[in-house]
Amino acid sequence: MAPHQEGEEVSNKQVLLRDYVSGSLQETDMVISTAGTTHLKAPQGSKAILVKNIYLACEPYLKALMTKGVTYSVEPGSAIAGIGVAKVLDSDHPDFKVGDLVWGMTRWEEYSLINTPQVMFKIHNTDVPLSYYTGILGMPGITAYAGFIEICSPKKGEYVFVSSASGAVGQIVGQFAKLMGCYVVGSVGSDDKVRLYNNSLIVDLLKSKLGFDEAFNYKKEHDLDAALKRYFKDGIDIYFENVGGKMLDAVLLNMRQNGRIAVCGMISQYNLEQHEGVHNLINLITKRIRMEGFIVSDYYHLYSKFLDLTLQYIKEGKMVYVEDIIEGLESGPSALIRLFAGHIVGKAVIRVSHE
Amino acid sequence: MAPHQEGEEVSNKQVLLRDYVSGSLQETDMVISTAGTTHLKAPQGSKAILVKNIYLACEPYLKALMTKGVTYSVEPGSAIAGIGVAKVLDSDHPDFKVGDLVWGMTRWEEYSLINTPQVMFKIHNTDVPLSYYTGILGMPGITAYAGFIEICSPKKGEYVFVSSASGAVGQIVGQFAKLMGCYVVGSVGSDDKVRLYNNSLIVDLLKSKLGFDEAFNYKKEHDLDAALKRYFKDGIDIYFENVGGKMLDAVLLNMRQNGRIAVCGMISQYNLEQHEGVHNLINLITKRIRMEGFIVSDYYHLYSKFLDLTLQYIKEGKMVYVEDIIEGLESGPSALIRLFAGHIVGKAVIRVSHE
Repeated sequence: MAPHQEGEEVSNKQVLLRDYVSGSLQETDMVISTAGTTHLKAPQGSKAILVKNIYLACEPYLKALMTKGVTYSVEPGSAIAGIGVAKVLDSDHPDFKVGDLVWGMTRWEEYSLINTPQVMFKIHNTDVPLSYYTGILGMPGITAYAGFIEICSPKKGEYVFVSSASGAVGQIVGQFAKLMGCYVVGSVGSDDKVRLYNNSLIVDLLKSKLGFDEAFNYKKEHDLDAALKRYFKDGIDIYFENVGGKMLDAVLLNMRQNGRIAVCGMISQYNLEQHEGVHNLINLITKRIRMEGFIVSDYYHLYSKFLDLTLQYIKEGKMVYVEDIIEGLESGPSALIRLFAGHIVGKAVIRVSHE
Repeated sequence: MAPHQEGEEVSNKQVLLRDYVSGSLQETDMVISTAGTTHLKAPQGSKAILVKNIYLACEPYLKALMTKGVTYSVEPGSAIAGIGVAKVLDSDHPDFKVGDLVWGMTRWEEYSLINTPQVMFKIHNTDVPLSYYTGILGMPGITAYAGFIEICSPKKGEYVFVSSASGAVGQIVGQFAKLMGCYVVGSVGSDDKVRLYNNSLIVDLLKSKLGFDEAFNYKKEHDLDAALKRYFKDGIDIYFENVGGKMLDAVLLNMRQNGRIAVCGMISQYNLEQHEGVHNLINLITKRIRMEGFIVSDYYHLYSKFLDLTLQYIKEGKMVYVEDIIEGLESGPSALIRLFAGHIVGKAVIRVSHE
């Protein structure tokens, strides 16, 4: 294929939002369109950049962006917004030049015009897989760092519980916890995850590859309280919350004095009409628990500190990252549905194009 | 009556716990006993003090102390434990002398032998009502200070909501909030409270006497969310939680970005078999809310700082305190029941003896 000329008009495959999502997310809420085209040019004076998307992160928060009334929500008929890794094809912004690699908010399409490139992060270290910038070196990484290190202030020897432990964020939290000398147990939410690795390998994966002390599938437990008591005889100091609902209720019963709960997500609740009631909040008082929700963008000022630390751990082999790379933009909608159903192990990444 | 001789045996009226409370607290869970006697003497070598109780605080946490399995719970057949103001009649402890006034953990009886007087606070300022040491200058005061000032870090101009606003703690929180330049709205939980002051005076009391900007009876509101939106058009920065359940759910919907919730109590839940479910915790994430339970004893190191500040405010007329003083130890059990039913305005104090 001949190189594109400046400003050339090319076809631009997209994943469009059909209409605002209400209730459970369906694959049919998204439409693959091959009708669109784009000029491979950032308009002069626009301060924009034109990028070719390489990897797109498949994440639960995408559903929120498809919901009416949310800040930054996507308009029906437009391409879904989300974090991705991209290469600059044209730049009208002084800080970006052709060939630069960036990660940040882009769209589910082959080519995107990014009007505010100043909020993108430039990628300088390319001796790790580029897809890592949608995961361990990107938003999930800084999310794990902010929620676990900054909000929970873990101390050596503390007891840590992580839900969605095999997910994009959970696996990083577990590894940070081990590196800080904590005891860490992770829960996962689907039998499929187990089957995907020959029936027992999710536990092996969490325990041997990611270093968790223990791991269990919470959907196989009749009594979550009993399950937690099995793994935490002396209770939980830190809970990294990704699930919500009944799991949170059981955790509250098992928290220790001065426990901390970083509320990162509540994936079990996102697809419910009405969220489950949490009954055990009284434990916040009796155990002096701090429970704190957070949004990763409030912690972006810590990104370079986090990146240096994590890159070093990766290079020293002290941290690893499990990814499920899904080929092709057109596979995005079904991957997102499988993610919500708990049928993806590790970080789900959509490969839009090859680097 | 002739003064008691040292070691004299006197009758000692008591309020005894009949049996551990399960479910709703009943007046019959407590028994008035006039059968007991006590020697007005702290045994030699005991490091104890023998006190005459003057005021006893009537507070929701007393129910917790009557429940099986709780730390510091009261044994069935013993006098109920609780905070009070007392005068030292005899002392075997070097730090206490006859005639000293103290406040701290004592028992619902006329005379108490206190084995660990070192955890009592000595009262040095007696130019304020002594009963204040069960309230604004005692545990409710330091509770309000710790929860509002230390945990919520209020800033001038912030929007503050206080539930149980006419209660022992709530009225202090409201006044601290006004002194710090916040807008503050309080809720109360009973029509009776309103009737007690000629149908509308609870609002007057909160607004004119205590300085709240607005006040409402939440039990008269069909839609708590709508009620909160009426008073907080721009949302709530700080919620001082005394109620729990449906109120907390409605508050979560109305919190602002970076809001803080100090969880002091959940009185609406204490008498329920199963606590109500709270459905809107997802707002912790979307609004980056910090929700923190606390126990006042963790903040006792701040007591003298708090006391100096609050005494000054009281002396300058910048803070006031509404009390409901109930005469006689034998009125204690019914007062406690009325407190749970929301039929007491201000701090409920039982006068056991005159100073």
